[in-house]
Amino acid sequence: MKIAVLGTGMVGHTLAGKLVSLGHEVTMGSRESGNPKGEEWARQAGPLAAAGSFSDAAGRSELIVNATPGTVSLAALAEAGEANLRGKILLDVSNPLDFSHGFPPSLTVCNTDSIAETIQRTYPQVRVVKSLNTVSAPVMVDPGRLAGDHDIFMAGNDQAAKSTVSGLLQEFGWVPGHIRDLGGLDAARALEMWLPLWLRIFMQQPQGKMFNIGIVSE
Amino acid sequence: MKIAVLGTGMVGHTLAGKLVSLGHEVTMGSRESGNPKGEEWARQAGPLAAAGSFSDAAGRSELIVNATPGTVSLAALAEAGEANLRGKILLDVSNPLDFSHGFPPSLTVCNTDSIAETIQRTYPQVRVVKSLNTVSAPVMVDPGRLAGDHDIFMAGNDQAAKSTVSGLLQEFGWVPGHIRDLGGLDAARALEMWLPLWLRIFMQQPQGKMFNIGIVSE
Repeated sequence: MKIAVLGTGMVGHTLAGKLVSLGHEVTMGSRESGNPKGEEWARQAGPLAAAGSFSDAAGRSELIVNATPGTVSLAALAEAGEANLRGKILLDVSNPLDFSHGFPPSLTVCNTDSIAETIQRTYPQVRVVKSLNTVSAPVMVDPGRLAGDHDIFMAGNDQAAKSTVSGLLQEFGWVPGHIRDLGGLDAARALEMWLPLWLRIFMQQPQGKMFNIGIVSE
Repeated sequence: MKIAVLGTGMVGHTLAGKLVSLGHEVTMGSRESGNPKGEEWARQAGPLAAAGSFSDAAGRSELIVNATPGTVSLAALAEAGEANLRGKILLDVSNPLDFSHGFPPSLTVCNTDSIAETIQRTYPQVRVVKSLNTVSAPVMVDPGRLAGDHDIFMAGNDQAAKSTVSGLLQEFGWVPGHIRDLGGLDAARALEMWLPLWLRIFMQQPQGKMFNIGIVSE
């Protein structure tokens, strides 16, 4: 698949690298065409990898991964351009974390709204799927590194888009029975509001020790 | 221990019943002394059980469990009376769920504050510990009913109060390694903000099938 990864941070790099290793044609998008982080990544990642502006990346891709911070996602998507997004699947892995008052961050939007819903309202023709935002980037692309069954969630209004995303998650190693479809995109509120607890657990973990949650039932 | 359980709903009943079965002297508190739900419970639960007003219950107890809905907890504690609460441990299991706009509920407070912190600010002499609010009442008092390792969290500013609560949790069957102390009471925000995701998972579970989350690490 032709995939744009918007964002040149750790999450963007991890996802873009994994997608290339799986044989996808990936363009890493950043604010400015010629961004050294994107260009350097593309050089090292081989012939399936490219770099460009948000608009370049979205324009040439079928699926767009929003790996920008939630606080700047709307600005990034505006630069990508509605015409480059329309009708496409947007996998939103962002979190609306506000670090301006220190650590742990609060959320810039929550409870009755979410970044994912804000994106969907702004771009009604985009097929937004929220997923992967509940885990660290290394876990997103390699769930098998954790010792036990654990779960990933999805939310979105477009069932076919969720099926496509589920397929990508399975390419990453997620097991179908542990890919939990929580329903419509309003469930993205719940996925983004998980972050405060994730952060508190993270603060108690040995440094660098990755984790996730598994649902344990009767 | 002499324990007050404030609240006569399902959570209050479940906790009060379990505490009596463990040999604690429990007074179920409700808005009005002589509340039929409290009286009936006390009659059936035997000699260790009593019922009374919020004030009666708190006044005769060393540890107070807030099992009222988060939306009315401050009113209930005002009726209990500061003098009956001062210096005591308050185990807050409440959630600030607002059902006025339908299901799933939103939260009445979150992100930069929590019910638990509101209680602590209102009663600085009370030793507030947040715990158990992340699971259904039947799981609170019987974690072994789930098939696998899973976790319960605690937050609070008073280490000795958390030790006492941890002891109670262990009496309920929680395993020390899975009782996760997340630090100061500001972590209660994270525990209350877990509820939206709990509710979405709940909506996908087969009816009546209890669940919790377990932390899975590398």
